[in-house]
Amino acid sequence: MIKAGIVGATGYTGSELLRLLALHPEVEVTVVTSRSEAGKAVSARFPHLRSFNDLQFTDPSVEKLAECDVVFFATPHGVAQAMMPAFIDSGLKVIDLSADFRLKDADLWAKWYNQPHGCPELIEQAVYGLPEVNRAEIKGANLIACPGCYPTAIQLGFLPLLENKLVDSKRLIADAKSGVSGAGRAANVGTLLSECADSFKAYGASGHRHSPEIRQGLNQFSGDQVSLTFVPHLVPMIRGIEATLYAELTTDLSLEDIQSLYELRYKDEPFVDVMPLGSSPETRSVKGSNYCRIALHQQPDSNVIIVLSVIDNLVKGASGQAVQNMNLMFGLDERAGINQVPLMP
Amino acid sequence: MIKAGIVGATGYTGSELLRLLALHPEVEVTVVTSRSEAGKAVSARFPHLRSFNDLQFTDPSVEKLAECDVVFFATPHGVAQAMMPAFIDSGLKVIDLSADFRLKDADLWAKWYNQPHGCPELIEQAVYGLPEVNRAEIKGANLIACPGCYPTAIQLGFLPLLENKLVDSKRLIADAKSGVSGAGRAANVGTLLSECADSFKAYGASGHRHSPEIRQGLNQFSGDQVSLTFVPHLVPMIRGIEATLYAELTTDLSLEDIQSLYELRYKDEPFVDVMPLGSSPETRSVKGSNYCRIALHQQPDSNVIIVLSVIDNLVKGASGQAVQNMNLMFGLDERAGINQVPLMP
Amino acid sequence: MIKAGIVGATGYTGSELLRLLALHPEVEVTVVTSRSEAGKAVSARFPHLRSFNDLQFTDPSVEKLAECDVVFFATPHGVAQAMMPAFIDSGLKVIDLSADFRLKDADLWAKWYNQPHGCPELIEQAVYGLPEVNRAEIKGANLIACPGCYPTAIQLGFLPLLENKLVDSKRLIADAKSGVSGAGRAANVGTLLSECADSFKAYGASGHRHSPEIRQGLNQFSGDQVSLTFVPHLVPMIRGIEATLYAELTTDLSLEDIQSLYELRYKDEPFVDVMPLGSSPETRSVKGSNYCRIALHQQPDSNVIIVLSVIDNLVKGASGQAVQNMNLMFGLDERAGINQVPLMP
Amino acid sequence: MIKAGIVGATGYTGSELLRLLALHPEVEVTVVTSRSEAGKAVSARFPHLRSFNDLQFTDPSVEKLAECDVVFFATPHGVAQAMMPAFIDSGLKVIDLSADFRLKDADLWAKWYNQPHGCPELIEQAVYGLPEVNRAEIKGANLIACPGCYPTAIQLGFLPLLENKLVDSKRLIADAKSGVSGAGRAANVGTLLSECADSFKAYGASGHRHSPEIRQGLNQFSGDQVSLTFVPHLVPMIRGIEATLYAELTTDLSLEDIQSLYELRYKDEPFVDVMPLGSSPETRSVKGSNYCRIALHQQPDSNVIIVLSVIDNLVKGASGQAVQNMNLMFGLDERAGINQVPLMP
Repeated sequence: MIKAGIVGATGYTGSELLRLLALHPEVEVTVVTSRSEAGKAVSARFPHLRSFNDLQFTDPSVEKLAECDVVFFATPHGVAQAMMPAFIDSGLKVIDLSADFRLKDADLWAKWYNQPHGCPELIEQAVYGLPEVNRAEIKGANLIACPGCYPTAIQLGFLPLLENKLVDSKRLIADAKSGVSGAGRAANVGTLLSECADSFKAYGASGHRHSPEIRQGLNQFSGDQVSLTFVPHLVPMIRGIEATLYAELTTDLSLEDIQSLYELRYKDEPFVDVMPLGSSPETRSVKGSNYCRIALHQQPDSNVIIVLSVIDNLVKGASGQAVQNMNLMFGLDERAGINQVPLMP
Repeated sequence: MIKAGIVGATGYTGSELLRLLALHPEVEVTVVTSRSEAGKAVSARFPHLRSFNDLQFTDPSVEKLAECDVVFFATPHGVAQAMMPAFIDSGLKVIDLSADFRLKDADLWAKWYNQPHGCPELIEQAVYGLPEVNRAEIKGANLIACPGCYPTAIQLGFLPLLENKLVDSKRLIADAKSGVSGAGRAANVGTLLSECADSFKAYGASGHRHSPEIRQGLNQFSGDQVSLTFVPHLVPMIRGIEATLYAELTTDLSLEDIQSLYELRYKDEPFVDVMPLGSSPETRSVKGSNYCRIALHQQPDSNVIIVLSVIDNLVKGASGQAVQNMNLMFGLDERAGINQVPLMP
Repeated sequence: MIKAGIVGATGYTGSELLRLLALHPEVEVTVVTSRSEAGKAVSARFPHLRSFNDLQFTDPSVEKLAECDVVFFATPHGVAQAMMPAFIDSGLKVIDLSADFRLKDADLWAKWYNQPHGCPELIEQAVYGLPEVNRAEIKGANLIACPGCYPTAIQLGFLPLLENKLVDSKRLIADAKSGVSGAGRAANVGTLLSECADSFKAYGASGHRHSPEIRQGLNQFSGDQVSLTFVPHLVPMIRGIEATLYAELTTDLSLEDIQSLYELRYKDEPFVDVMPLGSSPETRSVKGSNYCRIALHQQPDSNVIIVLSVIDNLVKGASGQAVQNMNLMFGLDERAGINQVPLMP
Repeated sequence: MIKAGIVGATGYTGSELLRLLALHPEVEVTVVTSRSEAGKAVSARFPHLRSFNDLQFTDPSVEKLAECDVVFFATPHGVAQAMMPAFIDSGLKVIDLSADFRLKDADLWAKWYNQPHGCPELIEQAVYGLPEVNRAEIKGANLIACPGCYPTAIQLGFLPLLENKLVDSKRLIADAKSGVSGAGRAANVGTLLSECADSFKAYGASGHRHSPEIRQGLNQFSGDQVSLTFVPHLVPMIRGIEATLYAELTTDLSLEDIQSLYELRYKDEPFVDVMPLGSSPETRSVKGSNYCRIALHQQPDSNVIIVLSVIDNLVKGASGQAVQNMNLMFGLDERAGINQVPLMP
């Protein structure tokens, strides 16, 4: 069995890793760290894991974690950077779910996160863990920067359009909506049920931290510098992201042709589902699963293509994608542990 | 007291009219019709109206309704068209909350509603009841076509941009989101709590019935033929619409200048609130009230202006706006009966 | 106009007072205090109050507040006790929405709140502000202890049974359920949307702070020492309390007779609605309003009477009842400012 | 592989069977029937099953279903009764998730369901599928009557108390709360999101169809005729049942002793979790899983024991329990296919 450690397992991405790995046939979680909960049973904090997990949280210790084969960082930004050199030096494989190694430009990172990057020397060897784009590199990587939730839904939605140069890359719009779990498990007035249930709003409309990560990916797909307007919104639900993408077609291809290109691009992808033309993907259709579902639309007399893309932000947008990366790094079945049927209703 | 009748008062716009008119200082509801509920007490169907309403539903009768001073149609499309000539002939003032008289082009109506228009001869005299645009005409009207919910939020959001010719009118995008009450009170699998709670989706992305109504308004504001992409979404909440609008600026005005134009345009409007630059209007900030709140955003190095617009779909998007129209038609204080503080939380 | 001050207006009961008083015909809020928000505009924190309130929060100052005619405490327990003597000495009328003066036994208070009572000398003159029981005393009071939310719903539900000695007072059960706003607006992991939406649980099942307050009231109604089991639950909704009450009948009266006694007891109460036998009161039927709705049930071959009682925890369970008390204290129409139609849907 | 058929798979218990069986290592679903959807792809109706199920719905045919090894009825009451004799005659094993064979008294069934029982001759051989009580009989059964959702949560909660004669069986109260999916997937105004979100109510408080089923079980456990008051409530959530049970202790055993009896009773049960004393089980802690979690409470100076019991109504309360029964009938690992970690958050 592969031994896995999780740093910072008291939040939602950490507990979701615990859920997914609990039944993974080839992996055993052996270390779970939390400064605040050290000494307490994991199942006391997470009663849903009773009978699946009898570990206790421990203080994070490089020594202890170095006995693992793989370590996941499910921490706020900044934490993985500080600890990373020690881990990489000890030959561990590391999968970082935080934003620490997603951007290739340390200065850009510093600008958006208001602090200098703590480990610029490892940025280059970090592989951006979007298997649909970087599968080969992921297999050989020691350090994976797991994509953000919005970036996953939006990049997978735009990918075939940009790779095939079908749209004006200077006029991309991503109107994205997220469930509240995307804000994490920290005590916060703004994400109280009484504050955000039965309501809806945009936030970060003047600029959001996920923008540079998304642009970096779209630039790579298109081979030029895209212009993207990205507006996130808060939906009164727990899990799920929906992105509605708008782009102007610069091709004469019919919508059916474009649909075929999408189907072709993703036909071997185990977790990307191109739905029939005209479908309305619901976030619940991927709840608890690692799927991204995509559908295409075009309105009468319009040259705008509309792409709808949904994921579960905690699975394909975080912990499930992390497990998918781990499976690739260790040569396992890419679906192991994450071959789960979405929970509906 | 002005005597008011409501045709089809068993749905949400009907019950919302009853709520608003219950405490209106100048109006008394005297007739409430429903074929299916005739003979039953209004308060039996709507327990929240107990002690505010002791009427019974009656079968719709032109004769009975003609004793009123004003009649509201809170019916599915098609119903008002059939009954309208008789009402107008009898000198009644009519406020139609349905889609029947919103479009000035009967053929376009027929196309989107899959049936011939039943009363084309009255289309011309119907005044589109958006007070912020047509206040003068409303005051003298006999027949008001009350705007749809999405059209209200979107038109008020785009209005100053188009009137001032600040944006490329061929590249307008309206990404709009509605609470489930927008789908009405009919039994329907798709709007069961178990089907749409804790989930989010786009719908009608290939074309929605509100598009021609929105375009008709935007064309009027801009003086040309706009191109609009409009995608509605379903939010797991009861009330509220949020529209995120995108347009490309064709002006050198700063965002602050545009903000000033918005504030100027709406400074005398009792129910449009231009929030400070950078605000994130929440739908709950207008819940139960007749307000539309608007905020502007622009992202770094971008020529896209982002307008956020929120309303309560059942109030400013339907019954509240109907009462506002009524107040104007009868020379009352425009705020009468709808001067309510939003319910938060 | 009566001048009102609100101490601690940044929470839900405070903002609800601001909502209700904004349109009160005889009252003007002149002072709103908050240590943490001093100097900020009320409408910046509460955008729903934009155009209804142009005050700024100030530091709480006895001097400033003493210029008011009435002061509301919308503070956590402990705060009102500390400030109360100064207020009462200056001749102010005070309505305390916290738990500070609800219990007549200072030792019992100290036990449940884990701190000595800070102002035992004023307990006696504090009038428990349940108008349906203490209307006469309220009219002459200087200090009102406004009932808790659970206690209001439960006492009004049991009252006619106990006053008429119809049930075994040693076997009372109150299974009560509250929306999340009952937990207040403090940052707290347990009341995050992601933690309590789409879930349900009991809490405090081994003993809850509202128990002694409820028992004190029930003892008064019945004239003896009742035995009550009270279990509160958390409902994934914002507002509302439902209490399902169980008691064993010790009378031969029929359910219809008991219904008549309920109707008689509450026939002159402006805010208690005894619904027809067999009704299922929903919390939404009182949302945003000051009503308590009650319905009676009895199952076949059973001597257990079931009372269903619903209120809006922030209105009849807090701020609405506070305004009702204020109206009584100042000889105003008891309904002034709180004669609102519930918001449905 | 065991071949399974599902009759009436368009509702929630049907789709949940499809979810659970999709990854069951020993079972393959080969027939899925629906009169209304015959000819359509299962995954068209249930997009969450895309890539897990490529069947089409067919008309229900005894012949076709008789090729299966086991047939599940996920139908409204009345349907299974009509078809059952043919199935049993052909030697099939049948698991009925409907209410048709739960009651041992056909007259009682007729009374509560307002129609004569359609197949009284098979009632006796039907085994009530509560594995914690009837495991041995289930193993040898041909016809399983799968328990209702409320009855499962309530019986498992009361079982150790009654078996050990610790409480007054004439004074049992079950205050139970269910998510909306318990009402099924039929179009219905009462279960629209706009009607039941952000609200809470009791229903069926004068008598509910699950009462006789619960009483039948409790009578068996206690060996006498219990008196039970059962009041169900509707919670604005999708899945989950919580039952708060009240009983008067007739024993001197301490709460700790009773806790030990619960732990002992359920120590070998794979799906019943007795939580530590004082716990507050949340429905989300079992979401998507087959667990029942139970916790005990007692208030100071009280002889009332409070039992909190939670299940997922669609899993342990329906389809998961059905699979558990199937596993027992076919000698499989009792956990096969239902060894799933609850989905949190």
